[in-house]
Formats: sequence, C-alpha cells, structure tokens
Amino acid sequence: MKAVGLVVEYNPFHNGHLYHIKEAKSETRSEVAVAVMSGSFLQRGEPAIVSKWARTKMALASYADVVVELPYIFAVQKAETFAEGAVAILNELGCASLLFGSEHGDIEAFLNTAAHTIEHEDGLNEEAKKQIAFGLSYPQAMAKAFRAVTGDGRNIVDLSKPNNILGFHYVKAIVQKQLSMKPETVKRRSSGYHDSAFPEADRIASATSIRKSIFEMGSLANSRFYLPKPSIDELDEYARTFGMWHSPEDYFPFLKYSLHTMDTEELKGIYEVEEGLEHRAKKAIRKAGSFKEYMELLKTKRYTWTRLQRMNTHILTKTKKADVKRMLSEPYPAYIRLLGMTKKGQAYLAEKKKSLSVPLITKTGSFSHPSLQLDIKAGQVYSAPLKEPGRTMLTEQEYSLSPIRYDEDSRIFLRK
Amino acid sequence: MKAVGLVVEYNPFHNGHLYHIKEAKSETRSEVAVAVMSGSFLQRGEPAIVSKWARTKMALASYADVVVELPYIFAVQKAETFAEGAVAILNELGCASLLFGSEHGDIEAFLNTAAHTIEHEDGLNEEAKKQIAFGLSYPQAMAKAFRAVTGDGRNIVDLSKPNNILGFHYVKAIVQKQLSMKPETVKRRSSGYHDSAFPEADRIASATSIRKSIFEMGSLANSRFYLPKPSIDELDEYARTFGMWHSPEDYFPFLKYSLHTMDTEELKGIYEVEEGLEHRAKKAIRKAGSFKEYMELLKTKRYTWTRLQRMNTHILTKTKKADVKRMLSEPYPAYIRLLGMTKKGQAYLAEKKKSLSVPLITKTGSFSHPSLQLDIKAGQVYSAPLKEPGRTMLTEQEYSLSPIRYDEDSRIFLRK
Repeated sequence: MKAVGLVVEYNPFHNGHLYHIKEAKSETRSEVAVAVMSGSFLQRGEPAIVSKWARTKMALASYADVVVELPYIFAVQKAETFAEGAVAILNELGCASLLFGSEHGDIEAFLNTAAHTIEHEDGLNEEAKKQIAFGLSYPQAMAKAFRAVTGDGRNIVDLSKPNNILGFHYVKAIVQKQLSMKPETVKRRSSGYHDSAFPEADRIASATSIRKSIFEMGSLANSRFYLPKPSIDELDEYARTFGMWHSPEDYFPFLKYSLHTMDTEELKGIYEVEEGLEHRAKKAIRKAGSFKEYMELLKTKRYTWTRLQRMNTHILTKTKKADVKRMLSEPYPAYIRLLGMTKKGQAYLAEKKKSLSVPLITKTGSFSHPSLQLDIKAGQVYSAPLKEPGRTMLTEQEYSLSPIRYDEDSRIFLRK
Repeated sequence: MKAVGLVVEYNPFHNGHLYHIKEAKSETRSEVAVAVMSGSFLQRGEPAIVSKWARTKMALASYADVVVELPYIFAVQKAETFAEGAVAILNELGCASLLFGSEHGDIEAFLNTAAHTIEHEDGLNEEAKKQIAFGLSYPQAMAKAFRAVTGDGRNIVDLSKPNNILGFHYVKAIVQKQLSMKPETVKRRSSGYHDSAFPEADRIASATSIRKSIFEMGSLANSRFYLPKPSIDELDEYARTFGMWHSPEDYFPFLKYSLHTMDTEELKGIYEVEEGLEHRAKKAIRKAGSFKEYMELLKTKRYTWTRLQRMNTHILTKTKKADVKRMLSEPYPAYIRLLGMTKKGQAYLAEKKKSLSVPLITKTGSFSHPSLQLDIKAGQVYSAPLKEPGRTMLTEQEYSLSPIRYDEDSRIFLRK
C-alpha cells in the first residue's frame, strides 16, 4: 500500500484539513494517509483545544488512516526542529511522499530554496546572527539573511509566510538526509475558494479563527459551519466529559505558581529561557492578572510571541535545557507512538511493521524512554486545569489508553 | 511597659483566644500582649483560613497589641522547632513572660518535665529511636520514651496532649537557653466553661470545629456565636474581597501539578520527604481525585497526618532540605517581621527598639534574608487558588503592605 505523510496539529480538525487529506491522497495517488500529530502542546506553545485522543478521533473519522504522536521534544519547537522530527517519523513509517500546504504552492521552488540554503548555510547563519544583534526576531532575521545571501533569486520561496517556512524545513530535512520520501506541496486554500468536487471548499476557515470564535462564544455556535461532523461531535463530547476546552489562559494559575516557586537559577535551566528572560518573566508574572497581561509585559522585539509562548510551556512542563539537548543529540525517532488507526491503517502498519527499525508503541507502560516520559508529563500538565474526576481520568489515559480504532466502512469506533 | 508573649495561629481568632489574651494580661499583670503568629501556612501543614493580614486585624481589634510573624521555617515544623523559633522571637521582643494554654495547667509540672528531659536527653532519644523502629510515629515514640525514661514520675506532664506538647517545648527552650522570660500556663478552657467576668466564656469552640462548620456550611452561620465581632467582620470582608476561605483542598490542583512535574530526585530534596515517601507520593497522586483521597493513599502508621501535611506544604512551596538545614543552623531570629500593632503596641516597640539586636522589618522590600524570601514565596503559594485580581493583590501585599495599625481607643484601623 502506498502512503502519503502529513504533518498536523488538528487544533481542531476543520474542513480545510478534510480537503487537505482528500487532496493529498488523490494528488499522490495514495491509499493511506499517515498523520504525525502534535500531542498536548503545539508548535506555537499553546495547549491543544482538546486532548490528543479527541483530535485523533476527529482525524480517523475524516479520512486519516494512521495517527501517530509527534513527541513534545519536536512538537513545541521552532520550525526547523519541528520539521526534522516530523519528517523522520513519516519516513520511518514508510510514507512514499510528504504533502504539505503552502502559500507558495510549487515544490520546485521549495527544492531550489532548500538547495540554496544548504549550499550557503555558513553565510546564512552569519548574516542571521548579525540581524539578531540588530534586534530582529529569529524568523525575521532568517528571512532577511536568506534574501541577502540568495539575492533576488527567481523561484525562491517567500520565507516570511508561516506555511512556507514549515514546508521549507520539511523539504530541507528530506534533502539533507537524502530520504527517498518525496516532498509535495499544494497551494493552501483560503476561505471563499470554490471546488465543485469538494462541497465543503467554501466552508473553510482557519483553525485560529475557529478557536477564537469557540472561546469568545463559549460554544460551537458560529463554528459548526466550518467543521466536519466528527469534529463537532468530539468537541461536544469533550466539553460534556471534561467541562471545558483548553486555552492558554487556563494554565495561567499554574504558570504563575511555577514562576513563583522556581528560583532564577532553576528557571535559567529551563529550555528557551535565555539572556535574562528568567528575571523578566519573574518580574512580569508579579503584575499580571492574566496570561495575556503577562505576555504583554514579557514581550520584546527580540522574541516572537510564539517563541515566548513555547518558553512558558517549557516552564509549565519543567523541560530542562540539558534534557532537550541530550534527547535531540540522539538518533530519532527512538520509537513511534501510535494514537489511532482505521482498518486500512491497521493493514498498512501490519505491512510496514517488519521494516520498522524502532518500536511502535501502543501502550506507554510497555516502553520507557525520556522523550515518552516527557510526553506523559506534558499530558499531566495539560490535564491540570480540568476539574476532578476529569483531571485524573485524562492523566491516566496517558498510561491506560490503547490506540483508537476506527472502522471506516461502518463508520464506528471499535472497542477493545 | 511590661509585656506578655503569646504563640498563636488564630485560625481564626475566636472567643477562646479572646479569653486567653485577657487572662494572659491579667495573670501576668502585663499592659501589653505580644503575639507571634504563623503566617500563610500553619503547624499542622494547613493553609490559614484567611491571610496573615486579616488574622492580624482580628487580633489587634481583640486586645493583642503587637503581632509579628513566625517565619515559615519555624511555623511549618514539628513542635520542638516551632517552639524554639517562637520563644526566641518573644524573648528578643523583651517579653517578661510567655503564657500558654495547656491541658495540664501547672507550670511547675512543665518545669519539672523540662528539667527531666534535659537531664535524660540521650536516653530519651535512644528510646525514641527504638520506638520509631517498632513503627510508632515520632510524637507517639517521644511520649512513650518519656514515660520509659522518667518512670511514673509525679508532677510530670502528659505529653500525649497537643497543648501540653507545645507548652513543654516552650518551657524546654526557655530553660535550655536560660532566658529571663518567665514561662506561665493556664488551664485551657473547653466549651461549657463559665466565668462571670467573661461573658463569652460559654461561647467557646475550638478553631478546628469552627473551621469545619465554616467549610461545611460555606458560611459563618453556625460560627458567629463563637467568634468576636472583629473576627466575623474580617472573615466576611475576606470572602467579599477574595471570594473564598482557604482550605487544604484548594491547593490540591497545585499539589498534583507539582508532584507530576517534579522527578523523584527533585522530590527527595524537599524537606520532610524521607525514606521513599517520594515514590509513595508520586504513586498516590495519580489515583487521587481530592486532597483527602491523596492523604488516605499516602498515610502509614509510621507518619502522623500532620507530618505528611507539612511535607505536602513543603512540596507546594518547594522548600528544600538543604535550605532548611542552612537556615536552622544560623542564629535566630535574624529579623522580626512586624504584621501589626495598636497604639500601645507602637509605644512598647518604640521603647524596646533600642535593645533589639535584630532589625524589625516593616516592609519586606527594605531587607533581604532567605527566611524572609521563603515567607514571601509561601505567601505567593498561599494566594495561588484565588481568582484574579485577588491573587495578584494578595501576592503583592507581601511586598507592599505596611504593618496594620489599630487605634484601640477609637476602635478603628488607621490608614497610612
């Protein structure tokens, strides 16, 4: 069976994602879609709106066949590390191609840009350092350095666009590691796009705007139109079971508590706490009555909002510099954690299992690895704002829950 | 002016406390009552029902003249350390006597018991160790060892009674350090006691039963009868301002979060986490849906409930073994933090100021000491369960609030 790999967060899974999966399968002529999905916390440093399990169910009921977890160590990272982890997992799972959405939409431009970058790596880094010294944020500096080094090259991707950046790093990782997995891209559909083969195409809104509406309304009222039925069902079910959807503000009491109880030395040992940010964070938290207020007090031109949000998430999960360094210096993936599969996905995995060089984890109790421990801890922190018994229930799912199984023919989730 | 010293928690200040202050002043013929009061967390390892400021106000409006803080490093401790810290502070403040309530009621018996203990210290400790090895808790072992060593001595205090234990340690500390401060005791009044000079005497209930009623009712309805008017006012005002009264359950989300994010090595470094309790705590917290459930899973014969509650509080405040050891090895008190005073209390302090060998702190910003830092941190942890803006407000009071001033003649609190 031929599989296409997707790198996803599904926060939540919406019509754009549905379109993307269908398109990915047809464009690459794949029977199977394998999604590597961030777990509890996401690349922008935010908690996922609902648990990894609920998001896995949304995906399986909407044409994803295999969902595996992108470990925290890669998920809550700058684009480059995020991409390297995701690409390595999809390649390990035997995906023939990796398809991503981008603002640019032409894979040749990405390949060209990646080749350029690899060739001029030293010059680029030097130029970027200079720009950072001038006070630019890392992504700004990289984009500027890139323009400086490559000149006004034709067929070069605009790296100031968020999806171009991610795509560029997927392609670069694939080229650098000389993987056989073929990168492909499709132009991202924005709202107002029409496609007679895809009736939902004019019902696309970004995940950001959907979350914004959900939290502002306190309900799905204005979002239903943009969500596939299984997503609506899972979001409803989650709120019924756990009493809430997760937003960064829900973690503010724990962040404040953490910053108050950690001394500056301990704080300095936390990943992404650099250059005196420990003092800045400790000062900001004292005055702040909300996460938003805290972030506004913390923000400087030097760091992007998402970079600081990731730092906060590492403070919340007490993820130490030394641990991240050690984990990233080892070959990865060291394992793959399966979150869910359809019947077709199960058949695909059965076929690929022999060629897997790392264990495929279905129960966390059966395997031990620092990165897996970190994912479990992140799950525990993720559950912290829930009321009991939901908090204990969700925390224990990190240990007890077997992968979700979905029968795509009868459209039901299977019990063990 | 002559002052009597009292060691208090006022959790909350009730009619029994009022009686005790009046009796203390008259028994010792003192014009001034100086209270050394635990701050955010108490000797049993519990949070105080309301802040140190609210409890200071209750005390000042009910005949206490000076209220100073017993630092966390002494307040959340076994009786011996608790007593040593409190006695040192009252002595430093020039109190001519220290008066405590006890089940026994005869100071000669306490002096006799203290003398016995100091004489037989080695034998006592050896016997206690043996009893602990048999599985007794520390206080049980000490009481048993004491009976074994002293024999059936007459005029010996029964050290299985909680107030006798505390009193014994006050007296022992005074005797051992050869302080000029004179220990005195009065028999504790239980409910049903009558005294025509004290109309509230038949309206005495224990602080424990008052708190129990307050939390069960969610109101002061059944407790008003046992509380002086200023206590009712402060409890009402606190609930209006901060939306709650503090109970151990309120800290459960933070305790759970802390235990999940600390690894066993870090946990082992926390004060009072001994002999594998780190594993036991980590295991218990996973299953527990409430603080009560957690404590029941944690409890063994080996440790008392209060010993384990203190351990949990140290986990909450991240108080490390090494830090406690260092602080307790230094001469104390290193400073005295003033929480409040009446006009008479102010005059008393003005008189004594010259003879004070340590600074009297009125603003925490003006002085730095590890023990004071710990009190501020404890105040921040104490505020954690409050909703904003109350959380930030209370936290900032650790830095910004000057001592409470009360005019006992016009019965009003003075603004700065």
